[in-house]
Parts: sequence; structure tokens; C-alpha cells
Amino acid sequence: MTPNTDTKVRILEAAADLFWQQGYTATGVAQILKVAAAKSGSLYYFFPTKEDLLLAVLERYKEGLWPMVIQPAFDRVSDPIERIFAVLDGYRRMLLATGCSKGCPIGNLALELADSHPAARALLAQNFTGWRQAIEQCLDAAADRLPLDADRPQLAAYILTVMEGGLMQAKTYRSIEPFESAVAQLRDHVERLLADGTDWSSPRMSPRD
Amino acid sequence: MTPNTDTKVRILEAAADLFWQQGYTATGVAQILKVAAAKSGSLYYFFPTKEDLLLAVLERYKEGLWPMVIQPAFDRVSDPIERIFAVLDGYRRMLLATGCSKGCPIGNLALELADSHPAARALLAQNFTGWRQAIEQCLDAAADRLPLDADRPQLAAYILTVMEGGLMQAKTYRSIEPFESAVAQLRDHVERLLADGTDWSSPRMSPRD
Repeated sequence: MTPNTDTKVRILEAAADLFWQQGYTATGVAQILKVAAAKSGSLYYFFPTKEDLLLAVLERYKEGLWPMVIQPAFDRVSDPIERIFAVLDGYRRMLLATGCSKGCPIGNLALELADSHPAARALLAQNFTGWRQAIEQCLDAAADRLPLDADRPQLAAYILTVMEGGLMQAKTYRSIEPFESAVAQLRDHVERLLADGTDWSSPRMSPRD
Repeated sequence: MTPNTDTKVRILEAAADLFWQQGYTATGVAQILKVAAAKSGSLYYFFPTKEDLLLAVLERYKEGLWPMVIQPAFDRVSDPIERIFAVLDGYRRMLLATGCSKGCPIGNLALELADSHPAARALLAQNFTGWRQAIEQCLDAAADRLPLDADRPQLAAYILTVMEGGLMQAKTYRSIEPFESAVAQLRDHVERLLADGTDWSSPRMSPRD
């Protein structure tokens, strides 16, 4: 009998959650089967190796970026700059819902696997790139409010840096505080950029200008 | 015969390097013994469990913060703000020396172990706190050049966030570019803070002021 796709989804969901909670190496196949309530025959039918399962999980995160992460934030607010902070607020809510454990599933797997699993590294990078592009769309939509020389792709990558670094400290200190502080500092930076971009008649303050 | 402390140091160095390269879970005791050229009797004499070895490695990183990370940067420049960027440049050099693999040993272990190893999590947090305090010293030394309302402890934590997030992307993209970009954006923020802090007679631009 051919295993059905419900089973495939259950295996993918169980693997994604276990990899997120405890890492890829620390997760055994037996545990995935138990959580997914699946038989090993089904697992190997869909995913001949553990690495095939990992790659499928990472593809699934890519597909989930807009429906799970970006769109819910964009639906809450319409101002492009506030949309960026709404995306970040989604991570704040996730931290609160998990007692500041777990962190970012992509960030965790990136540090664990980037050196040892080249195919996974490529998909992890694609996940990051998708996130950066969503943020860059917001920055592009607010381009006329930012300084003329603002490097928007670089700023989008920086916002990912701040998100990931903030989640790392929140997980390590088991506290929302480092994440909220990081967002507050980013907000300060963005406000200074907006002030500089808008007040074009005021004297420029940065030595660069 | 009692194993000597040379053997202990070799075991610690081998374990630190292997945990850094491939993670804690993925590192087996046999591999540590091989790299350290040590016998299992010596290992278990000094470290009854693998977790004891992990905690000793994390204590060693704490002790190494100033001699290995902070002091070499402070010796290169004396301006307190430039000292911060010299510390960050130390990580840039490490990335270049490792082909952007490996990343930060503390950050890697933090994401891998914070949820599952409480004693390690406490030591990982202490490592972060030590780093933040070193950066905060620099910010305090430059306090009269920063805006009066600058939250220096928060800014120090933010600089750690940027460093760790930047290393994560560098490792994932196997490229120095995301790290250098993150430092460039941080530099932009700091320059805006310095301009705001120094030009006290100019009109304030941030909506907050």
C-alpha cells in the first residue's frame, strides 16, 4: 500500500518541530516516527535519507515565509516601515509563546549545519534571502522617506541580522528583554534615517553627508 | 599514574575546536581523544561526563575573553568608539581566516544547547554578559560624545546582537559580505548618535527629542 500524503505532512511537521526544538543531529528517526505516528516504511518511502527529510523541511519553510511570517504582519499594518516592525513583532510574540526557548528554526539549523551539509546551507541561505527581500520591499516602498544614499538591500540584510542576533540572546538569557532592546535600538536607527531623509532642508549631521 | 595538566589542556583545546567546528552533539568522545592524543582514562579522570567537559570549555572561553578577544583590539586603537569597531574587526579577520565557516563558538553552542543544557546556558549567558560589559566600557568612555539619553547597556547588547547576527549570515552565505554590511550599518547608526551627541546646538532631528 502506498503511504498517503497526510502521513507525509505529519512526518514533515514532526521533523520540523523536533529539529526546531532540539536540533537536527540530536533528533533521532525513532522520535520523528513516534511524534508523527508513522511507520518507518512510510518515512523511507517519502524520504530515503534523514538529509532528504531535512531538505524537505527547509523547502517547506521557504513556502511558509509569506503565508506564515510576512502576510500576517502586512495584514495588521499598511505603513511600509511599520510593516517591518510588525514582522519583528511576530517574532516577539513567538518568543513569548515559547517562554523564549526555541528561537528561530532557520537560524538554529544554519549554525548547526552550514559547514557540514552544503545542500542544506543553500536552502538556509535561500530562506534568509526570501526574508530579506520581503523587508526590502518595505524599504523600497518607503524610499522617498529614507536618505537618498541609503543602501536598502544592505539595510534589509541588517534587519535580518538584528532579528537573528536578538533571538539568539533571548534564547540564551531566557528573556524577552534582549530582543525588545535590539528592536528598540533598530527603531532608533530607523527614526534617525527617516528624520534625515525627510528633513532635507535641515543641515545634515552625519560626517558622511 | 595521575594524568598531567598538559593532557587536560590538550583535551580542552581539542574539545573546544571540535565543538566549534561541528557542534556539541555531533562530536564524539573518540574523536576528542584522537585529536587530543589522549587516553580515555585521562579524559574521565578530568571530566567524568561529556557535559563536564562542555562546562570546562565554556569556562575557558570566559577566561579567554579579555586576552584573546578584547585586549588585542584595545591594543590596536585607543579611541573608545574605534575600540568597539576593532573588536568587530577581530571577528572579520577570524571569518576571513576560516573561509567564513565556523562562526562564533559561543553563538553556535548557545543555539544548540540553551534549551537542553541549563548549566551550559548559564555559562553561555555569562560569556555574552562579559562581552557586553567590555563594549559598555567603551561606550561609557565615550559617554560625553553620545546623546544624553543613549541607553549604553542596551546599545552594548545591541552591538553583540549585530555581531552574532552578522556572523550567522556570513556562515550561511559563506561570504564576508553580510558581516561587513552589518558593521557598516552599525557604523552609520553610531555616527548618527555621535553627530546628535556632539552637535548639541543644532536642531534635533529625531521625532523623540
